[in-house]
Amino acid sequence: MERPHQWNLRRERTQVSEQLKKFMDEKIPLLDNHFSELFNGKNYPEILHEAMAYSVNAGGKRIRPLLVLAVLQDLEVASEDAIQVAGAIELIHTYSLIHDDLPCMDDDDFRRGNPTNHIVFGEATAVLAADALQTLAFEQLATLQHTDPATMLAILKAVSIASGASGMVGGQILDMQGEGKQLSLTELEEIHIHKTGALLACCIESGALLAKVSESKMEILRTFSRHIGLAFQIKDDILDVTASTEQLGKTANKDTASEKSTYPALLGLEGAQAKLEDHHKQALDALEEIGLGSSLLARIGDYIINRNA
Amino acid sequence: MERPHQWNLRRERTQVSEQLKKFMDEKIPLLDNHFSELFNGKNYPEILHEAMAYSVNAGGKRIRPLLVLAVLQDLEVASEDAIQVAGAIELIHTYSLIHDDLPCMDDDDFRRGNPTNHIVFGEATAVLAADALQTLAFEQLATLQHTDPATMLAILKAVSIASGASGMVGGQILDMQGEGKQLSLTELEEIHIHKTGALLACCIESGALLAKVSESKMEILRTFSRHIGLAFQIKDDILDVTASTEQLGKTANKDTASEKSTYPALLGLEGAQAKLEDHHKQALDALEEIGLGSSLLARIGDYIINRNA
Repeated sequence: MERPHQWNLRRERTQVSEQLKKFMDEKIPLLDNHFSELFNGKNYPEILHEAMAYSVNAGGKRIRPLLVLAVLQDLEVASEDAIQVAGAIELIHTYSLIHDDLPCMDDDDFRRGNPTNHIVFGEATAVLAADALQTLAFEQLATLQHTDPATMLAILKAVSIASGASGMVGGQILDMQGEGKQLSLTELEEIHIHKTGALLACCIESGALLAKVSESKMEILRTFSRHIGLAFQIKDDILDVTASTEQLGKTANKDTASEKSTYPALLGLEGAQAKLEDHHKQALDALEEIGLGSSLLARIGDYIINRNA
Repeated sequence: MERPHQWNLRRERTQVSEQLKKFMDEKIPLLDNHFSELFNGKNYPEILHEAMAYSVNAGGKRIRPLLVLAVLQDLEVASEDAIQVAGAIELIHTYSLIHDDLPCMDDDDFRRGNPTNHIVFGEATAVLAADALQTLAFEQLATLQHTDPATMLAILKAVSIASGASGMVGGQILDMQGEGKQLSLTELEEIHIHKTGALLACCIESGALLAKVSESKMEILRTFSRHIGLAFQIKDDILDVTASTEQLGKTANKDTASEKSTYPALLGLEGAQAKLEDHHKQALDALEEIGLGSSLLARIGDYIINRNA
């Protein structure tokens, strides 16, 4: 049997440029290897260990860690800690998915084509496995071996702010509160800037911190991040309407069923597509400003809007 | 109406030495004040903000932050960041209680005499509020203003290891797995060394790191921590059998009902009491070795074994 990760990758390769394909072919095995070494090196209680590794190894697009690594490659800076930082942010993302899928939250039985964590391990173990993944992310960021302490602390601060109540978790709450309500475009953006945008932006910021970019370059990278984050969410909303459950590896039409405000619901499918392209353009314009118009970040931007899952 | 915190404190003062009472009278208001300033300074989504603050302000014994502050006072070292470190560990403890109380875990409706977080705010918000409290703890540790980066990172590492899959969360899993089974004393100790012992020890270690103690002194403080951690749990198990629900502020006889292995079940009530006193003695002996026989830590040790809630 193929690993679900391979299954995901093969299907998604169709929307990926040659440059990005080469980068993914190189980096994704490094990430997979990093995660196996990380878990092999730990002496956790067996069932907790399995539950944590299950969701981390379920694959997915790995967009977040790829963003961290892409920034560094685009800026031509090597960091031996890049994989560990990238991996830590993926652990945060993974913990949030496990909690999101719980019966008391989105109540999802499938994720990335596989049964969700609580379906396999039970709710209590899923809650705790996710908790421990969050903790492990911070442990990983606090134990980088090749980065100066000030940069480590800057990354730790950025990741904690992006993933907590002012960022990702705050966005999940806003998202829940918005269910069944007719939201304005501003309110919808507010949700997504927090729920998905903050952590995506944090990937780029963390890579840029490792690369020690100037504050002016950082500011432009933040503009890129903001647009690419919104583009990512608009594309997710569009796919929820247009793609099949099999294609997504998770339940399609979930947003309509749960009466969530989405970009297509608010702007129509064509309006949402136009908005997506507008954010894509603004993201690429920002990259042009700092000479990164042909960069990996630009190609990840393309991929985010062209993907079909 | 009295705040539950005051209610807890008044009842518990009967078991507290004058020295410790004075210390608590000074430090607990500082902690309360720290938490109000912390939450007042944050612009979180309202319901998330309320849910996070609700459990943090529900009071409780505050043993963990008091341990951090006591180590520093006993070693006669002042740190302007002590309250922030102490508070961060209390945030970790609080998040773990919120998840512990969930229907899929211990399913508890009351905690510290108040309705549990999910009873007040609903399960989804409780899950997320706890997640965000964990994140906030790490944000707090990554943003100390008066501590050198190396010490900050050492504390971050210690807290993440103590609270994650090798520590507190691992212990919760072992505890769940042990339900309905007849455990040996070694297995029971293994659970508690992880579930409660690791974070208690981490409080002492964090205080000692802020105080920059020598490795030899740190080792002796670890011995104290190990014994006081086990004593704490044995006392909890004894109280579960001997105290009333009103006295505990949470459901009494919960362990028997959920078929948990406990010290009284394994050793009898007298045997458990003897074990408690043995750990208490060994904890105090360790303190004597480093001239802290009359310290606040020693008095907190006494309080842990003499408390009636």
